[in-house]
Amino acid sequence: MFEKLVENIKDYRKPLAFGIARVDLGQLNHDKVLQATYPVINWNENFGSAAVFIRSLIECGVDVNFNDSEFVAPINKSFVDRALEFFGEDLIAEAVGDKHKNIQVLKVLKDIFEEELYDNYRICFLFEDAAPKSVESVYLKLYALSTRKVPLRSINLNGAFGVLHNVAWVGNVPIELEYLKAHEIEMKLRDSFPEIEYVDKFPRYLSHIIPEENIRILDTSKVRFGAQIAPGTTVMPGASYINFNAGTEGPVMVEGRISSSAVVKEGADVGGGASILGVLSGTNGNPITIGRNTLLGANSVTGIPLGDGCIVDAGIAVLEGTKIWISEDEFNKIKEVNPSWNAEYKEYFKGLELAGLNGIHYRFDTTKGKMVAFRSRREVKLNEELH
Amino acid sequence: MFEKLVENIKDYRKPLAFGIARVDLGQLNHDKVLQATYPVINWNENFGSAAVFIRSLIECGVDVNFNDSEFVAPINKSFVDRALEFFGEDLIAEAVGDKHKNIQVLKVLKDIFEEELYDNYRICFLFEDAAPKSVESVYLKLYALSTRKVPLRSINLNGAFGVLHNVAWVGNVPIELEYLKAHEIEMKLRDSFPEIEYVDKFPRYLSHIIPEENIRILDTSKVRFGAQIAPGTTVMPGASYINFNAGTEGPVMVEGRISSSAVVKEGADVGGGASILGVLSGTNGNPITIGRNTLLGANSVTGIPLGDGCIVDAGIAVLEGTKIWISEDEFNKIKEVNPSWNAEYKEYFKGLELAGLNGIHYRFDTTKGKMVAFRSRREVKLNEELH
Amino acid sequence: MFEKLVENIKDYRKPLAFGIARVDLGQLNHDKVLQATYPVINWNENFGSAAVFIRSLIECGVDVNFNDSEFVAPINKSFVDRALEFFGEDLIAEAVGDKHKNIQVLKVLKDIFEEELYDNYRICFLFEDAAPKSVESVYLKLYALSTRKVPLRSINLNGAFGVLHNVAWVGNVPIELEYLKAHEIEMKLRDSFPEIEYVDKFPRYLSHIIPEENIRILDTSKVRFGAQIAPGTTVMPGASYINFNAGTEGPVMVEGRISSSAVVKEGADVGGGASILGVLSGTNGNPITIGRNTLLGANSVTGIPLGDGCIVDAGIAVLEGTKIWISEDEFNKIKEVNPSWNAEYKEYFKGLELAGLNGIHYRFDTTKGKMVAFRSRREVKLNEELH
Repeated sequence: MFEKLVENIKDYRKPLAFGIARVDLGQLNHDKVLQATYPVINWNENFGSAAVFIRSLIECGVDVNFNDSEFVAPINKSFVDRALEFFGEDLIAEAVGDKHKNIQVLKVLKDIFEEELYDNYRICFLFEDAAPKSVESVYLKLYALSTRKVPLRSINLNGAFGVLHNVAWVGNVPIELEYLKAHEIEMKLRDSFPEIEYVDKFPRYLSHIIPEENIRILDTSKVRFGAQIAPGTTVMPGASYINFNAGTEGPVMVEGRISSSAVVKEGADVGGGASILGVLSGTNGNPITIGRNTLLGANSVTGIPLGDGCIVDAGIAVLEGTKIWISEDEFNKIKEVNPSWNAEYKEYFKGLELAGLNGIHYRFDTTKGKMVAFRSRREVKLNEELH
Repeated sequence: MFEKLVENIKDYRKPLAFGIARVDLGQLNHDKVLQATYPVINWNENFGSAAVFIRSLIECGVDVNFNDSEFVAPINKSFVDRALEFFGEDLIAEAVGDKHKNIQVLKVLKDIFEEELYDNYRICFLFEDAAPKSVESVYLKLYALSTRKVPLRSINLNGAFGVLHNVAWVGNVPIELEYLKAHEIEMKLRDSFPEIEYVDKFPRYLSHIIPEENIRILDTSKVRFGAQIAPGTTVMPGASYINFNAGTEGPVMVEGRISSSAVVKEGADVGGGASILGVLSGTNGNPITIGRNTLLGANSVTGIPLGDGCIVDAGIAVLEGTKIWISEDEFNKIKEVNPSWNAEYKEYFKGLELAGLNGIHYRFDTTKGKMVAFRSRREVKLNEELH
Repeated sequence: MFEKLVENIKDYRKPLAFGIARVDLGQLNHDKVLQATYPVINWNENFGSAAVFIRSLIECGVDVNFNDSEFVAPINKSFVDRALEFFGEDLIAEAVGDKHKNIQVLKVLKDIFEEELYDNYRICFLFEDAAPKSVESVYLKLYALSTRKVPLRSINLNGAFGVLHNVAWVGNVPIELEYLKAHEIEMKLRDSFPEIEYVDKFPRYLSHIIPEENIRILDTSKVRFGAQIAPGTTVMPGASYINFNAGTEGPVMVEGRISSSAVVKEGADVGGGASILGVLSGTNGNPITIGRNTLLGANSVTGIPLGDGCIVDAGIAVLEGTKIWISEDEFNKIKEVNPSWNAEYKEYFKGLELAGLNGIHYRFDTTKGKMVAFRSRREVKLNEELH
């Protein structure tokens, strides 16, 4: 039935992703989209709903362009009515709880449009994973990352910074800086100057995402929207930070920085103030992955990818160029747990030469003044109950 | 007179602690207590008021169980009326300002219950310091710590994490994550999605505690409820954090992390990004105390207890296993200020062997590549006026 | 014409600075000024407006004291009417957008005073740059710093801490701690206990300043009022912090701490968790400047001023007393880019001896256990697009 809907649409293309958003518009410049909030997103799924939406747009007179990488259009009451008609009464009745979420969106919109004809609802389609061109498509991609529909580092966000506007955030609401400047005197004298919580192009993770039951984020400022947080992860409020397109793939204790593009695997522990360098600083563009059960000690700095079961001692820095001494004996033990590593023995290795190896303990020998590496003697496990 | 109240109560036991709380209940699951807010708590004190409360409960038909470690019951208008009657008009008239705070609680409740019959007021008694079994008793204990009625590390909080629920906090209000999920589509489309500030089992210190006049906490996210902050303490907003059951015992400048169970004494300075390891990470379960006037340099890491007047230089890590060189001369000077330390001289000491000693300066010698310790040559004092 | 206004005023003195503020008064002690919010400030400018304001005060019967370093007076409807009359209709009509901002203030006040006669508007004059004596003058100076009307470290803030009150901040509103204590029982039981965001004498930068278009501050708690943030600066939310009378002079990426009195020049990068020591801690009172395009690596600590194009490697501490090895060859290269540096060669230099030099790369040699310095081989440039 859904196929019939699209069979006579010229150039019809199944979208890679789509969703309906409420957008926040500029207070001074009403044509500027400051933020897009999606109640539901679809990524490589629900092509029938996509067909209904596209068909409804066309019947409402919208000229849908399938030749670009993305398409965004405002939606109105007649779009909603038409789409609901296509879905039919049976599906509409079923659309509650976890079922038919796209139809649930339409049902709420139907009520909203009965009250007033708003101009800040949009539908966005991505036809391919190209560099985003609109605020709506950047947000759709950030949603895909933060809802864990796509893996970290797997989608194209090139130029996202250029598309987004830098705004003041008052709660979940973005406000143009120019608007604040234009009303500064009035607002300050009348005691209505808003409480600005941050000024950024990106919102925060918790402004858009309801975390899983066993995720804890002790300070909303610590996780940017577009980060990915796996169940069981705790983000403490000290020196921690998780940037967009970075995050965790399993239960992880985060008390340090997971810079843009860094990925941390299950059971790892990012100690207080520990820094995982990002592609934008210090890694020559090589994204860092931290392996399972690996421990980054307090105030350590890691500039190379690490395998599973590694330990970086508190306070040390293991960078691409750091010279690290390994005894021949320990070299052989490290080879045992890294069978595909075919290095020849030498006294000093550079950090980059050890990238991604499992079971290494990095330590600074405070008697000899050398950075050393040896086979890690303990498995690192997270404390289950506490924190 | 109060003794008469209880003389015919079977198994009557004086409670270790008690208080009346307003509780926040689950939005979906109304039987779930999400938070308890105590205007006043009693810890090993005010046994007369306890007797009145217990007598009033019994006369209201409540079956008070004295055999368990704690007892929690809802309270209502008739409980309040009865308890006020026991106290009598004279005490009621006197109960203002700092006098008879438990009676002040009843007076406010009397007004509240005249407006409406609420079901979210509870009385909680602790009969012994056992592992807490209810949200109300966990909160009573966190209040005892944060109001400084009990010393840090002195009470039983075993299993507290299991008792508390993980919730989204919007201001001081806890909200079930399931509730948010159930209303996500509606709230996002109608622009009523709340501003979630954090997701955690614990609230923040400043949500329950009004600090002393000369305490400064520059960011509420930096201090968890259950932490203890002594007058004269300043908590800066950089990389600092104070966990529950941890804190300061006098004026302290805090710019680093005081992990769970760590205690810092008066005049100490926890430098920017400095990390004091907690029992949950890196100390093999040995809780750390930092002595009077001890300075932890910026980005240092301390994994052993330190005595008074110590200095840990910026950027270094003194852990249990760190090998530290001491000259024989300095060894003797250190013994002088630590008369009860009966160690024999050797060139290298492990960090753990120096645990708790006074007057040591820890430094990394950047010419010899050795971690060294020597008798600290200066007393560390806080800048009185600034920060 | 303005000169005529003041010619018969005894002892008339042109003010160094002035402005009209709305003040927040104590909830219990109504005579206590908790905060002053200036919509516009004047620093060594607009002397005509100052003359109008002073003339109007005098005609309203205010005894303006020109002999003290500052003068603060409440203002009322008749002051506003009189001042507007002096300015005249033409100027009043022109006063919109960026023109005649002092007159815009009066126009808004005229409307406000028509509604009600408020007592919380003040005018503040500084006649010289002495230690501030009132909350109003401290705020006027903090505004001067944060609006970049005066350079960092150029004005007298001695004793500012003593003048300001320590209060609880709920949004932009300061609340006396005593007031909260007096109403604690009532507020907690009635669920009206406010959400305290911080307790401090200073407000936050974003409570008073609307940043330039290309400034990003990802967490308001990270920048204290009185800090100076130059266009192009980004302040990340991990371990960063910028204190009052500290900040940036050009585009800078800030992921670490810029302590009180520290200044960072354009193109520099303060890495994640990096610490620049302040005059209050670790620098013996020598304020630190970080030069152009200098990079402070993650978790590094800098206790000396650095010139342009320096690099401090991640995780190391360069303090005044740190002994740093330099080869003769590198010593000569460093002299080349620092022609005015007339040091003799020696193997080891103390950090303080290298203060302010350009083009030095500080590194810890992990094979020899030595801190070394050599001529920096790369220019440090900020990534233009990202972060």
